[in-house]
Amino acid sequence: SNSDLQSAGRFHTVAILGSGDFSKCLTVRLLRRGFKVVVGSRHPKLAANSFPHVVDVTHYEDAVGKANIVFLAIRREHYSALWDLKHLMEGKILVDVSNNRRANQYPDSNAEYLASLLPSSVVVKGFNVISAWAMQQSYPKDASTQVYICSDSAEARHLIMELARQLNFQPVDMGSLSSSRDIENIPIRLFPGWRGPVLAAVALSIFFFAYAFVRDIIHPYVKHKQNDFYKIPIELVNRTLPSVAITLLALVYLAGQLAAAHQLYYGTKYKHFPQWLEEWLQSRKQLGLISFFLSSVHVLYSLCLPLRKSERYLLLNTASQQSHTNVESSWNEEEVWRVEMYVSFGIMSFGLLSLLAVTSIPSISSTLNWREFSFIQSTLGYIALLIATLHGLLFGWKRAFEEEAYRFYLPPSFVVSLALPVCVVLGKALMLLPCVAYKLHQIRKGLDCNLHKCQRLEPVGSAANVSPERVTIM
Amino acid sequence: SNSDLQSAGRFHTVAILGSGDFSKCLTVRLLRRGFKVVVGSRHPKLAANSFPHVVDVTHYEDAVGKANIVFLAIRREHYSALWDLKHLMEGKILVDVSNNRRANQYPDSNAEYLASLLPSSVVVKGFNVISAWAMQQSYPKDASTQVYICSDSAEARHLIMELARQLNFQPVDMGSLSSSRDIENIPIRLFPGWRGPVLAAVALSIFFFAYAFVRDIIHPYVKHKQNDFYKIPIELVNRTLPSVAITLLALVYLAGQLAAAHQLYYGTKYKHFPQWLEEWLQSRKQLGLISFFLSSVHVLYSLCLPLRKSERYLLLNTASQQSHTNVESSWNEEEVWRVEMYVSFGIMSFGLLSLLAVTSIPSISSTLNWREFSFIQSTLGYIALLIATLHGLLFGWKRAFEEEAYRFYLPPSFVVSLALPVCVVLGKALMLLPCVAYKLHQIRKGLDCNLHKCQRLEPVGSAANVSPERVTIM
Amino acid sequence: SNSDLQSAGRFHTVAILGSGDFSKCLTVRLLRRGFKVVVGSRHPKLAANSFPHVVDVTHYEDAVGKANIVFLAIRREHYSALWDLKHLMEGKILVDVSNNRRANQYPDSNAEYLASLLPSSVVVKGFNVISAWAMQQSYPKDASTQVYICSDSAEARHLIMELARQLNFQPVDMGSLSSSRDIENIPIRLFPGWRGPVLAAVALSIFFFAYAFVRDIIHPYVKHKQNDFYKIPIELVNRTLPSVAITLLALVYLAGQLAAAHQLYYGTKYKHFPQWLEEWLQSRKQLGLISFFLSSVHVLYSLCLPLRKSERYLLLNTASQQSHTNVESSWNEEEVWRVEMYVSFGIMSFGLLSLLAVTSIPSISSTLNWREFSFIQSTLGYIALLIATLHGLLFGWKRAFEEEAYRFYLPPSFVVSLALPVCVVLGKALMLLPCVAYKLHQIRKGLDCNLHKCQRLEPVGSAANVSPERVTIM
Repeated sequence: SNSDLQSAGRFHTVAILGSGDFSKCLTVRLLRRGFKVVVGSRHPKLAANSFPHVVDVTHYEDAVGKANIVFLAIRREHYSALWDLKHLMEGKILVDVSNNRRANQYPDSNAEYLASLLPSSVVVKGFNVISAWAMQQSYPKDASTQVYICSDSAEARHLIMELARQLNFQPVDMGSLSSSRDIENIPIRLFPGWRGPVLAAVALSIFFFAYAFVRDIIHPYVKHKQNDFYKIPIELVNRTLPSVAITLLALVYLAGQLAAAHQLYYGTKYKHFPQWLEEWLQSRKQLGLISFFLSSVHVLYSLCLPLRKSERYLLLNTASQQSHTNVESSWNEEEVWRVEMYVSFGIMSFGLLSLLAVTSIPSISSTLNWREFSFIQSTLGYIALLIATLHGLLFGWKRAFEEEAYRFYLPPSFVVSLALPVCVVLGKALMLLPCVAYKLHQIRKGLDCNLHKCQRLEPVGSAANVSPERVTIM
Repeated sequence: SNSDLQSAGRFHTVAILGSGDFSKCLTVRLLRRGFKVVVGSRHPKLAANSFPHVVDVTHYEDAVGKANIVFLAIRREHYSALWDLKHLMEGKILVDVSNNRRANQYPDSNAEYLASLLPSSVVVKGFNVISAWAMQQSYPKDASTQVYICSDSAEARHLIMELARQLNFQPVDMGSLSSSRDIENIPIRLFPGWRGPVLAAVALSIFFFAYAFVRDIIHPYVKHKQNDFYKIPIELVNRTLPSVAITLLALVYLAGQLAAAHQLYYGTKYKHFPQWLEEWLQSRKQLGLISFFLSSVHVLYSLCLPLRKSERYLLLNTASQQSHTNVESSWNEEEVWRVEMYVSFGIMSFGLLSLLAVTSIPSISSTLNWREFSFIQSTLGYIALLIATLHGLLFGWKRAFEEEAYRFYLPPSFVVSLALPVCVVLGKALMLLPCVAYKLHQIRKGLDCNLHKCQRLEPVGSAANVSPERVTIM
Repeated sequence: SNSDLQSAGRFHTVAILGSGDFSKCLTVRLLRRGFKVVVGSRHPKLAANSFPHVVDVTHYEDAVGKANIVFLAIRREHYSALWDLKHLMEGKILVDVSNNRRANQYPDSNAEYLASLLPSSVVVKGFNVISAWAMQQSYPKDASTQVYICSDSAEARHLIMELARQLNFQPVDMGSLSSSRDIENIPIRLFPGWRGPVLAAVALSIFFFAYAFVRDIIHPYVKHKQNDFYKIPIELVNRTLPSVAITLLALVYLAGQLAAAHQLYYGTKYKHFPQWLEEWLQSRKQLGLISFFLSSVHVLYSLCLPLRKSERYLLLNTASQQSHTNVESSWNEEEVWRVEMYVSFGIMSFGLLSLLAVTSIPSISSTLNWREFSFIQSTLGYIALLIATLHGLLFGWKRAFEEEAYRFYLPPSFVVSLALPVCVVLGKALMLLPCVAYKLHQIRKGLDCNLHKCQRLEPVGSAANVSPERVTIM
């Protein structure tokens, strides 16, 4: 059946309009797979030199006439010139492989513009995510090989998908041509899902850094003329990192709790969440990964503390003083226990977080079924948050209640950074109360389909696709 | 050829019985791909509101009559009601997408039960691993898209596989309907392969923790009234972790050695291993990964040692004593060398283990061929075990031979934890002896196929699929 | 359409010549998917026992006569015996699944040899990368399932690709039979892309270790009779590791700069790079990953420094001296700042490097588009190199300018190891100068295809596939 495409003479020849690099690479790939290629160029004689000899390089009109599948490897700006070939293009399949420089550069997508220009041709969008470089690779290595394809004609779509498969790409059916805008935006995007979470992390970092700077550097300098500026590169950074990390982790689970509260309040899972909550729910993976990254850096900074000269000097000076004041022993049982416990909790929490991070590697998470994924991301995640909160509380110990800890009337950093995590942990405890848990279960189950996990129906074409399933994760 | 399915009028329309969430999501997906959908419901008027307007929501009988492919999105408990539609279902393809709540909830699988109920219909099992949420996603993102499909009719199986492909899923042919039980268990399983290894790790942890507790906490308390309980959170944990980690690593390679011994004893590779050995061989990857995880936590705990207040107090007190007793220098060349060496070996071993762990990420291991995989998992793995054993021996040094190290007549922890690794290392040395290695090679090669790695033939349908290939890994 | 293959009676039966393990496993897999199998053996009666009863085990001639697709599961050495069956094989599809023991063992590939022997048959190469073990797995788990297939007959190639798909493998079309050599080399290769980078790392390690050994161990011993040999296992290793790591990282980016210089010099991107530069450009990923691995080990060694007895003894002795000489405070503000800064820079650089390493996991990098990949590998990578260089410079501080640092007239290790990174950082600064950047942009853009990233055209069949795209990465 795969050979139908090739045996059918009409599709054995593929035309490509345009003679740029993409055209050249596509030509090479088509030739390797046994297709005939005819290239249409504005200057065929000039262009012919840079194509293999077996390729027929000719004028646009001529090229279009020789094939039923025509790749347009030219810029959108030159589409208008195709209007003259309108009659030749009738009924042919035009594959628009073009990209723009910016997202949403034009009011309509290139493919839709082409379709409006040549209504009697069949326009298929595709192959734009493949770089000329990937096009040259004879078989998939480290580059992605997914090719997104859409068209209003199901038949043309399937034909081009089959062609993609023969070129060793993995076609993904994206439905009608209205998806072309999304497809054209794919190669231009720059971590769209990460923007919000990174901004949140940066804002929190600035806040916590400034807060610690005022309390730990400015205050001793103003009050006691004590120069502690050397603490900036390590101690201050290492006070900021865990604060941001635990706040981000709390934010991950807060989103799920707000969604649950929303469902409890309205008594149904079918009511849409507000837009900001939808977006928040969808950035939980990114928030969690940034939190893990900052935790890792926090671990590194903490482990480097004994490497510092300042630590060494302070220790030597303390030893010196102890020797001169004839202190027999500096042992403080409470301090010893506090530190042993908080270090141990810190490691445990980090160990659990690293499991969460590892299972979000795509090739690992795709081996997990829903129960397994939810066990790790929800159950283990909450335990990690709980232990991290205990780690913070043990670090603070009784200092939150000592007057001298309040500098410029500001509570210690850890009090500020633990406020949210403590609330989220208490919120989870609340949700585990039998009465709440039962009501929530009823809401989610009552509207369940008979067979599967709870699911809210999206109207067709709705952009929103947050699911209560994912809500139950956290 | 892909368009055959849609152009053929009979398959252009798909019927779905049931109007729950799964039914709704499947409907949306089918509509997006250009199919017509007719939904059968017990209360069609009520249900119609929650489906898009283009969908024909009607009674079961009516829906079944309009399509040749019928998805059953209803519970197993309601299958008996389908008996009345028996004559309408004749010759139609029924796709059973149902799941159970527990593994092996019923004596027969849902799909087999359905097939016995409606013998004149063609039953296909599939799509049950796809959650309603994943069903809504228009193209694969982080969710797995594999769909396992089985049926006694090869034609129906291929038709539904093609349908799955058109819905952007990756169908996996699982053969006859007897596989339906396995397919139904997939979404319910909770880390089945990890149960044994985790249990082993927990049991070993309890043993080593209790052992160290008795020796290091109880003994000094009983004998010298010395309160060392502060050592529990870090030192004791950090004594338990490496012991469990190295024992698990030794167990990984012990399994392979026992398998080799079995082959040597019987002189053939075709004799089945006992069941416990088969299972052990199959859990080596998990044992290795748990070992690596515990090693990582051990590294973290060890690195945190200098951060502790107890460490600081002991150091200050030592400095104080040294100052008072006028000790010129506390330098002890042997101790210095011992620690430098054992730290260095520890790092090397951990570095190698991390390479093993990284190459077991599915998307990385799938880029390795057999030689490369075996080089890393077997050669590097044994070297890691050897170096880890040396790390442990250097940690212990001469203490195993000192009388005072035997508290309550118990040898030090490291003696207990190194017993197995030392045996396995010696066992490997034995297997590398020319005479043994040659005999083993003969056994594995003599029964080789001509072209490929040694392989034991499994009778068709046998559950066991441990291979000597894998045996040779370790 | 998938069922065409099976419904067509001629392909429903598959013949396998040879009765080894591969033959047995292939038989099992074919049977499970509903095919009929006939096995040809030299000793059919003997062999029959080890095959399922439904399988027809017979003589070569008989087997070949019963099917149109014939798998050859025999050694190349026995191909000549097939010459007698020449007339029976006419027009049949012969699938060569054989492997060799060494790369390029014979002047021609096995498949090409077979084709020359039986010119009237259609030879397809394939399935050789699948081990007998993977053959037995009923559905893809952790093993790779890609099957590379090539043949001079497009029809036969597609038929066997369809067969592979039905057996749950992922066929990859490799074009004509001339690819069979590459396909046969796939299962024999042992990290071919890693050889150069590993050799470079080993050579650099030996150099830097020897250099540090002479300066830090031999020199104090010769000059001051000072025994510092205890420094070998940790301090010397930890001086070697970062030197090699930063040099390798600089080499990654140096390759891209040389390529850019080449393009600037010749004023075109279409001129081939010299062979050594091509290879260097293609090993950048490996160089970067080795650099990251060595950095990680360097981090571990550094963090272990305070764990050493030698550190403890030196500290105690210093405390003791300080106490006796009545030094009030050993605080040295400059030293404090230097160490705080260099530790902090080291962590930042390592954090960035770990992002680069994580995004080179295949399943993660395949989710990135070109812009995202280039942002991480180029922008973040250069920042990591810059910060790592600052880390090194801060470590060295003013010592490069102190006479006593030159032992045996040799400058300190860090001077040697920072020379290249400093050059590369300056080189990048040069390339960012508007005039240079503009000219480079013109060269790359002027020859761009209209739609896509800059790309140099490779003549068909050229082995070189380094792309300026990749050049722009670094």
